[in-house]
Amino acid sequence: MTPGLPPRHEIDELLRRSLAEDLGTAGDLTTDAIFDEDDTCTARIVARAAGTIAGLDIATRVFTLLDGRVEIEAHVVDGDRVTAGADLATLAGSTRAILTGERTCLNILGHLSGIATATRSVVDTLADTSTRVADTRKTTPGLRAFEKYAVRCGGGINHRFGLHDAVMIKDNHIAAAGSVKEAIAAVRRRVGHTVSVVTEVDSLEQIDDAVEGGADVILLDNLRGEDLRRGVERVGGRACTEASGGITGTTAGEIAHCGVDVISLGWITHSAPRLDVALDL
Amino acid sequence: MTPGLPPRHEIDELLRRSLAEDLGTAGDLTTDAIFDEDDTCTARIVARAAGTIAGLDIATRVFTLLDGRVEIEAHVVDGDRVTAGADLATLAGSTRAILTGERTCLNILGHLSGIATATRSVVDTLADTSTRVADTRKTTPGLRAFEKYAVRCGGGINHRFGLHDAVMIKDNHIAAAGSVKEAIAAVRRRVGHTVSVVTEVDSLEQIDDAVEGGADVILLDNLRGEDLRRGVERVGGRACTEASGGITGTTAGEIAHCGVDVISLGWITHSAPRLDVALDL
Amino acid sequence: MTPGLPPRHEIDELLRRSLAEDLGTAGDLTTDAIFDEDDTCTARIVARAAGTIAGLDIATRVFTLLDGRVEIEAHVVDGDRVTAGADLATLAGSTRAILTGERTCLNILGHLSGIATATRSVVDTLADTSTRVADTRKTTPGLRAFEKYAVRCGGGINHRFGLHDAVMIKDNHIAAAGSVKEAIAAVRRRVGHTVSVVTEVDSLEQIDDAVEGGADVILLDNLRGEDLRRGVERVGGRACTEASGGITGTTAGEIAHCGVDVISLGWITHSAPRLDVALDL
Amino acid sequence: MTPGLPPRHEIDELLRRSLAEDLGTAGDLTTDAIFDEDDTCTARIVARAAGTIAGLDIATRVFTLLDGRVEIEAHVVDGDRVTAGADLATLAGSTRAILTGERTCLNILGHLSGIATATRSVVDTLADTSTRVADTRKTTPGLRAFEKYAVRCGGGINHRFGLHDAVMIKDNHIAAAGSVKEAIAAVRRRVGHTVSVVTEVDSLEQIDDAVEGGADVILLDNLRGEDLRRGVERVGGRACTEASGGITGTTAGEIAHCGVDVISLGWITHSAPRLDVALDL
Amino acid sequence: MTPGLPPRHEIDELLRRSLAEDLGTAGDLTTDAIFDEDDTCTARIVARAAGTIAGLDIATRVFTLLDGRVEIEAHVVDGDRVTAGADLATLAGSTRAILTGERTCLNILGHLSGIATATRSVVDTLADTSTRVADTRKTTPGLRAFEKYAVRCGGGINHRFGLHDAVMIKDNHIAAAGSVKEAIAAVRRRVGHTVSVVTEVDSLEQIDDAVEGGADVILLDNLRGEDLRRGVERVGGRACTEASGGITGTTAGEIAHCGVDVISLGWITHSAPRLDVALDL
Amino acid sequence: MTPGLPPRHEIDELLRRSLAEDLGTAGDLTTDAIFDEDDTCTARIVARAAGTIAGLDIATRVFTLLDGRVEIEAHVVDGDRVTAGADLATLAGSTRAILTGERTCLNILGHLSGIATATRSVVDTLADTSTRVADTRKTTPGLRAFEKYAVRCGGGINHRFGLHDAVMIKDNHIAAAGSVKEAIAAVRRRVGHTVSVVTEVDSLEQIDDAVEGGADVILLDNLRGEDLRRGVERVGGRACTEASGGITGTTAGEIAHCGVDVISLGWITHSAPRLDVALDL
Repeated sequence: MTPGLPPRHEIDELLRRSLAEDLGTAGDLTTDAIFDEDDTCTARIVARAAGTIAGLDIATRVFTLLDGRVEIEAHVVDGDRVTAGADLATLAGSTRAILTGERTCLNILGHLSGIATATRSVVDTLADTSTRVADTRKTTPGLRAFEKYAVRCGGGINHRFGLHDAVMIKDNHIAAAGSVKEAIAAVRRRVGHTVSVVTEVDSLEQIDDAVEGGADVILLDNLRGEDLRRGVERVGGRACTEASGGITGTTAGEIAHCGVDVISLGWITHSAPRLDVALDL
Repeated sequence: MTPGLPPRHEIDELLRRSLAEDLGTAGDLTTDAIFDEDDTCTARIVARAAGTIAGLDIATRVFTLLDGRVEIEAHVVDGDRVTAGADLATLAGSTRAILTGERTCLNILGHLSGIATATRSVVDTLADTSTRVADTRKTTPGLRAFEKYAVRCGGGINHRFGLHDAVMIKDNHIAAAGSVKEAIAAVRRRVGHTVSVVTEVDSLEQIDDAVEGGADVILLDNLRGEDLRRGVERVGGRACTEASGGITGTTAGEIAHCGVDVISLGWITHSAPRLDVALDL
Repeated sequence: MTPGLPPRHEIDELLRRSLAEDLGTAGDLTTDAIFDEDDTCTARIVARAAGTIAGLDIATRVFTLLDGRVEIEAHVVDGDRVTAGADLATLAGSTRAILTGERTCLNILGHLSGIATATRSVVDTLADTSTRVADTRKTTPGLRAFEKYAVRCGGGINHRFGLHDAVMIKDNHIAAAGSVKEAIAAVRRRVGHTVSVVTEVDSLEQIDDAVEGGADVILLDNLRGEDLRRGVERVGGRACTEASGGITGTTAGEIAHCGVDVISLGWITHSAPRLDVALDL
Repeated sequence: MTPGLPPRHEIDELLRRSLAEDLGTAGDLTTDAIFDEDDTCTARIVARAAGTIAGLDIATRVFTLLDGRVEIEAHVVDGDRVTAGADLATLAGSTRAILTGERTCLNILGHLSGIATATRSVVDTLADTSTRVADTRKTTPGLRAFEKYAVRCGGGINHRFGLHDAVMIKDNHIAAAGSVKEAIAAVRRRVGHTVSVVTEVDSLEQIDDAVEGGADVILLDNLRGEDLRRGVERVGGRACTEASGGITGTTAGEIAHCGVDVISLGWITHSAPRLDVALDL
Repeated sequence: MTPGLPPRHEIDELLRRSLAEDLGTAGDLTTDAIFDEDDTCTARIVARAAGTIAGLDIATRVFTLLDGRVEIEAHVVDGDRVTAGADLATLAGSTRAILTGERTCLNILGHLSGIATATRSVVDTLADTSTRVADTRKTTPGLRAFEKYAVRCGGGINHRFGLHDAVMIKDNHIAAAGSVKEAIAAVRRRVGHTVSVVTEVDSLEQIDDAVEGGADVILLDNLRGEDLRRGVERVGGRACTEASGGITGTTAGEIAHCGVDVISLGWITHSAPRLDVALDL
Repeated sequence: MTPGLPPRHEIDELLRRSLAEDLGTAGDLTTDAIFDEDDTCTARIVARAAGTIAGLDIATRVFTLLDGRVEIEAHVVDGDRVTAGADLATLAGSTRAILTGERTCLNILGHLSGIATATRSVVDTLADTSTRVADTRKTTPGLRAFEKYAVRCGGGINHRFGLHDAVMIKDNHIAAAGSVKEAIAAVRRRVGHTVSVVTEVDSLEQIDDAVEGGADVILLDNLRGEDLRRGVERVGGRACTEASGGITGTTAGEIAHCGVDVISLGWITHSAPRLDVALDL
């Protein structure tokens, strides 16, 4: 089943914003001077490197916004793995629209596919475990919905989307409330019954506190090796366990083998290199 | 002299968008449940790694938008190099505002400083040449003005901002016009007298064509070593020369020594890793 | 502790939209013709009926947007109960701004306080139980964040804010998945580990299914009396129980006494009568 | 003849805003996890109570915005009276789009039809008089154009849309100008010749003043019974007469029989209960 | 008394839009390269030609939006007549802000003052009559609220602001309804009691029809001389009379002497030459 | 070849804004009261005066936005010269949409065609020279992209679109930098290699300075006759020469004969009279 796309109005707003910064108010000076309104062409979108695709329909919609008559045929769907050289889509229509939208399309597709590819590489590493790979809120400003979509395309799951859709109790909250347990209690009194509570812990005592307080997710922050294994055991299945903090593609496997339910990584969204994609006329 | 910031309304729109995706409509569930409207605190923004700072005023303005009374004192200015552990700014005011704005602030600051740091590293490599480092249009969707600002903070210069503020003649335009010279002529007939014309070339004949056609910038695409050196000589100072295409931090020096005026790199904007920054209460 | 306000940018957007529909492009024809730019006055905002206040700071901010120099002094805070005739706030400043903003201010304040008052009346009814009062997604289009804030001011809690921040499995989803259990499993495979799962049930078998499937909240839809009591017992504390469907202020108490954790009501947001508030010069 | 709809761009903006608050950036978690992109279904929108319909085309347009291919067939038009159980429209198309848009559609349709139903009930009460039923500016923030449209669907007429499209002279304006007559004169000097002037009066002297001053509409505020009848006689057809202030469905008939041209009521927009509508798959 | 300004949010939106088209995303390249963030200066806004000022506060607010610390002192108020060389305002503050905002400020001020000056010249011509000067809907796209404000500053009055705030019955409406009288009746049945009805007429019969139908304003379209005089007489004060259609500054006086209440002119908004204003450092 | 239109999203935003100011929230009161939703008609857009057309597709798109089913057939293309009485386009479809959009369509078409007509008249005057006609930044607030498009339709070229797409060094910049040469050097150090540099000069020494400094365009401000001719000679083809400052249709020819490459005129955008266009049913 394909992951649900970000809301349509978010997609169109991203495309409008991206076109606005590229076109300014003068438009595509070069293309408008060389090609006439009626000129047409066909073009292929290709992957120049192997990876996992995300955002193909989103990115090619830019041509529809520029000229509703451009025909777009996708050859893969989001989440597919492709090899270098793979044909991703074929375009046919107005040359002005296709050349004018090219860079905006590729920037979106390359960025999101880069994230899906990075996510997929970690997910593959953990294939022999039941640990799942999650993102964080360390996303590029203004692109969170899209980057989290790309994570889903890469086989990962989404951590909370923001400050608004789950509680996460961190050190400052704990210090102010007095303890993990009191922090959870304070939150439970005020938020709705459908809100999940995640809490960071950094000691075995806090784990007990979190479990007794009724945390839904216990985030074992920056624990490694034996400490992490012991933490997971202490939770004993009474809450979901999550490992976080500086986890790389290399260390992910070892951490997963400590039995944690979820590992979350910031770099898959904030520092994944772009997947090289191109448009050939 | 500090580089000019992106327009104020662009800054506020970026911050509003970033807050919107983090706060949704429910706001910061955790902080609102633990801290009261009147609680205050002080906090420091610190660099956890060495790098070049970009976007400090932009990023900390998020606290002003959340609560106009938060006091912000910056200890560095954009473009400064800092060491790991450096204090970047001090905040004092509403705990709710500071904790709620934390992630948005850090995401912007880390992203832009990552770009400035990457740019600076290439600029430093070329310190013994007169070659300048430029960005491209391969930027993150919706963030071009900000990423190009970060490049300036890192000591680089900006290539065109979009399709609208300079002409760039590429292979498809040349093929349609018949030759580099005809393409330049077609463009010059239609665009204003203040528009610069950049043209890609991939042979010595095209270089002659471009120079005679009156190109302002000649982009020697994917040339290396002796070929590049010969290209630069052929131009002979009659136009600005630019090298582009897969240039890395490692190859930049060698390419610059071919005498090219400018090298442009996509990865400093689209794939620079985030600079690690944090907020400590 | 005061509930957290909706995000500032949402408040300002609501006020801008409300002013736009009242002012059009011609502004306040009457006031601009009678009063001069420099005329000033003082005014009181008063409750004409007893109730619970919500949105006072939000509503009076309209005067600040019209003229930054209007002084606003609030005499109550959101969540306070007031009697008919109570002074809620005092305004001093530009007569043009005060008269022009009057209706917008009162429409917001009256609407939100009406919701808080309705909520509070149900909450009071359940004071001798541990059952909590929640809202639904049956809110006025465009006002959900504000109406849910008003519910919090009235002592209620918020159900999910939308389709995006919690899962709710309804009959159509169950039918498509095959059973409650399979529906929960399908959802758990795809959503993140911080997402709560609510499921509707309409039989004892489905309750078992839901509990075993690991639902966080079990919604006993349209059950009453003995059926509801038996449902709650069947859950046995292994999930949060919620009653919903046509519950009125009159039936709420009886339903709560069946031991359900939460009752949710649509009418407190979609059909609560406005609290009568006025502005006296 | 069907009343003119609010401007198309206002409709689309209302729908976008309503979808945004329901979908957030994560979309419909439940539906996206259970149904695939290609799943289709048919559904009916039905009235669960008798009433007058308003906003059917507006509300169902949400499905078009979510997926342009959803087929919508309306069985009634705005302004129609329906009985409980009536089929209002049939939908066919993407299950994801239909389930995702359901609540937004129903919230708009139920809210506007509630207003039309309330308006219609008062209009029916006055069927044996020539008195017309008008709304006020006491509307829900951000929904004025829609609520006033619903009043038209219910057989009412619209009072001014805002401060910008007619003058209304109230006590504060009269006090500042010196008298009703002077207030009218001050306004007439400054506003255009196409602007109607409404003035509140609270004594027979003020009525004379208003008539002589050339008021288009004289608002007999809070008058009842014999006082109202005498007021209407004093005007003697030289201006339109309007009664206002706390008029209910019960008192409307008696007031109309005093011969007033228009009665205006705030509660038909600000406190009308929602009409119960539902979507059945 | 100064005319009421367009709503604040309309002003800020105009300024934002104007800055956006001038600054793009790169900002003021020249000023940012020559002046540093801390450089300050003083400047004067001056009239280079005689005229009537409109929009001074609106136009200078651009500097506040660019930098909240720029000090602005106005030496005239909107509606004042000035001679060539007159000092209009003094600015002090950031050189970057003042030079960056200069053109936007002058474009707004010159445009609106051009309209006020044109209006004033016609108003002065009619000083010995009781005829008033009105604008039309022939305004520059997107600037209607501002241009109508400028007309007020020039001593004119505003015709309807749009299709929404008064009825105007034209030939097509009359043809469809059957007659002027039937058109008025059709409209009166449907629009509210506060809506004024203007009707065009082109014969004496239509005038009778219009008066009997109860038109508020009778627009004697393209009548001149004796025909117009006779038309005004036929109305006999039973409605407001308006002359329109190709009236110039030269013909206005003669037309006014026919006794018409209002003359309306399109060119004062759509073709008034800009007033020459400048900013001197 | 037809000039490239302003970006589609700019067009739609202009139309939305223009409709918003005309329709308010109540819509077209008159047309909605006389014509029913299903009424249809055909209409012609005609020129009432001779001129050059600009913005026909932009202006008629308003009908598409109001009702997607209106058929629009254009009989001329932008840039065509037409005689008085010429048929420009035929419309067929909803009467409500056509009458409601009429004024918005005509305001845009008349405004832009007025600019194209003024530009064309100057371009024709210079037909026997190689001097080109350019616009300036003295455009109507919010309409720059459209007015510059109209200039292109009239045969002119566009000067820079704003402060962001070319450098223009003026007296204040020169004074701050010390000299023209130093100002150019300061700018070149900071802006990218694709940015053109225009500099104003007012003496022969400054011309030498500008040429040596490497200015791309030298603006001979307010020079006339022999002084201008001498200035052009001094530049000697080493930069593009531009004359500016108070040039009228009458003086343009004489100035062009001084050999200048470009003359730029503000009045073609800020003070061109509207072309008279109309819509006939």
